[in-house]
Amino acid sequence: MTITTPTFIVILVEPKYSGNIGAVARVMMNFNVEQLYLVNNPCSLNNECYARAMHATSILDNAKTFSSFKKATANIDYLVATSSIEHFSDKKHLRNPLLLEEFTKKIFDVTGTIGLLFGREDYGLLNTEIAAADIMIKIPTSPAYLSLNLSHSVAVVLYSLYIHQQEPTKQRRVIGPQEKQKLHEFFSQLLEEIHYPDHKKHNTQLLFKRLMGRSIPSTWEYHTLMGVFSKTLEQLQQRKKN
Amino acid sequence: MTITTPTFIVILVEPKYSGNIGAVARVMMNFNVEQLYLVNNPCSLNNECYARAMHATSILDNAKTFSSFKKATANIDYLVATSSIEHFSDKKHLRNPLLLEEFTKKIFDVTGTIGLLFGREDYGLLNTEIAAADIMIKIPTSPAYLSLNLSHSVAVVLYSLYIHQQEPTKQRRVIGPQEKQKLHEFFSQLLEEIHYPDHKKHNTQLLFKRLMGRSIPSTWEYHTLMGVFSKTLEQLQQRKKN
Repeated sequence: MTITTPTFIVILVEPKYSGNIGAVARVMMNFNVEQLYLVNNPCSLNNECYARAMHATSILDNAKTFSSFKKATANIDYLVATSSIEHFSDKKHLRNPLLLEEFTKKIFDVTGTIGLLFGREDYGLLNTEIAAADIMIKIPTSPAYLSLNLSHSVAVVLYSLYIHQQEPTKQRRVIGPQEKQKLHEFFSQLLEEIHYPDHKKHNTQLLFKRLMGRSIPSTWEYHTLMGVFSKTLEQLQQRKKN
Repeated sequence: MTITTPTFIVILVEPKYSGNIGAVARVMMNFNVEQLYLVNNPCSLNNECYARAMHATSILDNAKTFSSFKKATANIDYLVATSSIEHFSDKKHLRNPLLLEEFTKKIFDVTGTIGLLFGREDYGLLNTEIAAADIMIKIPTSPAYLSLNLSHSVAVVLYSLYIHQQEPTKQRRVIGPQEKQKLHEFFSQLLEEIHYPDHKKHNTQLLFKRLMGRSIPSTWEYHTLMGVFSKTLEQLQQRKKN
């Protein structure tokens, strides 16, 4: 089965500071999003912009600029407005947002071109722009200071998309039931050898299980740990014989 | 029941650019984290720094500076290193990270002071600094460009903490630096007693640290574990005498 994932496009609407565009380009590359649209961009992509993009200059080189919001969004399948400002009344549907996490968990069910709209550093997106979007999403922030820096908004949205997009790339091989049982047998044997009080044994075994459960040992860690256990038991038993 | 959530402290180790510190302060306020520590900070908190902090100048005003990593982390209960660089071998326990999301889902089960370490813009954290941490967490990023901008790293980590900050159902008091040291001393003694091969000791101690770091033992669990350790050592030493 071929899985087609959606293609994400970051659309910056009238960004004011060139440095911010560079920072956005960098974080796009960090989270594997390639296409940048600039709408009605008043600032040139200057040296500061390229400096802040670091290794992501290709994203700046390939950025497309549009003279209007309408032109930029004409070929987007699904348009997403981001904002930290919402209305708390259910009746105001315009700024009645979905939380970022709810959105990112769902969006990979679809294919097509997804445009992620980010507004001006000072005013964000206009109501008409939010109205043009298929959905508005909100990054939850502290009521004490709602408004994120532009590139921070992009970072958080792309991070959330990135972690929901796929199986984790690097998987720790976790230990299976048999290995776990062996680990717990050795621990029980240890309690036996050190004459651990009978009435406490059960609880302490459970504690050990919980600790191991929370730390999720890899097979390699398991083998090292078993090495320590078996050497300890060996020593305890040998010395008993002497 | 009063629920005490952990207190997070952002610790920037040798940040080079004052503007970045301002951007970090802003995003801290966005996600409701107040305390900023600066370690061996070579740059003054200049106008650019305050400009980029926007409404978060109080965080800059209250930031504490420390002359060494050791001093900054002395009173932290649970120290978290962040890095995008990991080793792909399970054998290298030092940089064997937990993914950010796994971490943020767990950390609200504990109380205490949690120090979030962020390294230099160019070199990140040194191996010795990562080794001093209880856990290393990794923000998953594209293999094409692993390294996030400093304030983007902070933004993503604090966002992830912010959305997972829930009412914890059951709280455990996390163990502090002294208790941890005792635990690791006992483990080292155990390795000594069982004649564990010298060349493997360091790595196995680190493995134990990482296992404990990932499982985040409560004080209660700590005392039980120490009971098992001390009984084991006692038995091993007694039998040696006989």
